[in-house]
Amino acid sequence: MGTIRREGPRCAGTLRDSTFGSTPLNLEAQWITGFVDGEGCFHVGINAHSDMKCGYQVLPEFIVVQHERDVQLLEALKRHFGCGVVRTNHGDRMAYRVRGHRHLLEHIIPFFEKHELKSKKRADFAKFRRIVRMMEAGDHLKEEGVEEIRRIASQMNRGADKIKSDPIGNGRE
Amino acid sequence: MGTIRREGPRCAGTLRDSTFGSTPLNLEAQWITGFVDGEGCFHVGINAHSDMKCGYQVLPEFIVVQHERDVQLLEALKRHFGCGVVRTNHGDRMAYRVRGHRHLLEHIIPFFEKHELKSKKRADFAKFRRIVRMMEAGDHLKEEGVEEIRRIASQMNRGADKIKSDPIGNGRE
Repeated sequence: MGTIRREGPRCAGTLRDSTFGSTPLNLEAQWITGFVDGEGCFHVGINAHSDMKCGYQVLPEFIVVQHERDVQLLEALKRHFGCGVVRTNHGDRMAYRVRGHRHLLEHIIPFFEKHELKSKKRADFAKFRRIVRMMEAGDHLKEEGVEEIRRIASQMNRGADKIKSDPIGNGRE
Repeated sequence: MGTIRREGPRCAGTLRDSTFGSTPLNLEAQWITGFVDGEGCFHVGINAHSDMKCGYQVLPEFIVVQHERDVQLLEALKRHFGCGVVRTNHGDRMAYRVRGHRHLLEHIIPFFEKHELKSKKRADFAKFRRIVRMMEAGDHLKEEGVEEIRRIASQMNRGADKIKSDPIGNGRE
């Protein structure tokens, strides 16, 4: 396959990588957009958190879940974006997750601004971007900011497949 | 968006099209490959059928299922491939299905030969292609051919999400 290259020393591979072969995939931007239109999710969690000034923690994350047999695709996404983690999600499902604020702001958001989604997830992405930018401005540390974020987040992922929550923070970066 | 064009007279649009807007999407090959890596399925049904000489009917089909909110993506796939049907699958799910033997042989299979899947569905596609070619040679009309097809089909879609069957042939071309 033209887009497969031999694994070099920079990609030593994990134990799990080796389960699925040692030739990492190079992904084209349009493939990523199509795959994320199908399998991706832009999610904003808002949790009560006593350590936070306003009583809430806002957790935006970009997630792609796959059966473990295709974990090499998640590893390839991680390599492409240069951020995030690939961990077990639930059972035989693996997830690529990006939660780091700067990673979302500097890697994930610019990519999907340049390569627009074609599904209704495009609208979720726009809301997600708005929330991440509000956080950049510190709005999530103020009561009225959290309320606005909660309002925007409540309009996301309607009618879409629900992602399973990760209450123990297993996939935390 | 650069890939959106105005609807021309050749694409008059259906009632359902108009629900989601009248600007059909142009899909790039890599987007389709990524989307099908996520959402597509190559499936071969083998059903007892008294009209058939060998007692069985072999039904290969290419399927992409989506929530109805993204039916425009399925319509865009149909336009791109120039074959197949978009119909209700189950509940609020729609499906793009290609069952026509010549359509599979001349449109679907050449596309995925040229634009290789990156997920483990690539192995399912190879088996699917083998079965469609065996049918082209008439093997599905012979008892030993059906047995071989059954053996190959039993190794497909292992560990993948199961597609819902369509026992009443709702999506039949």
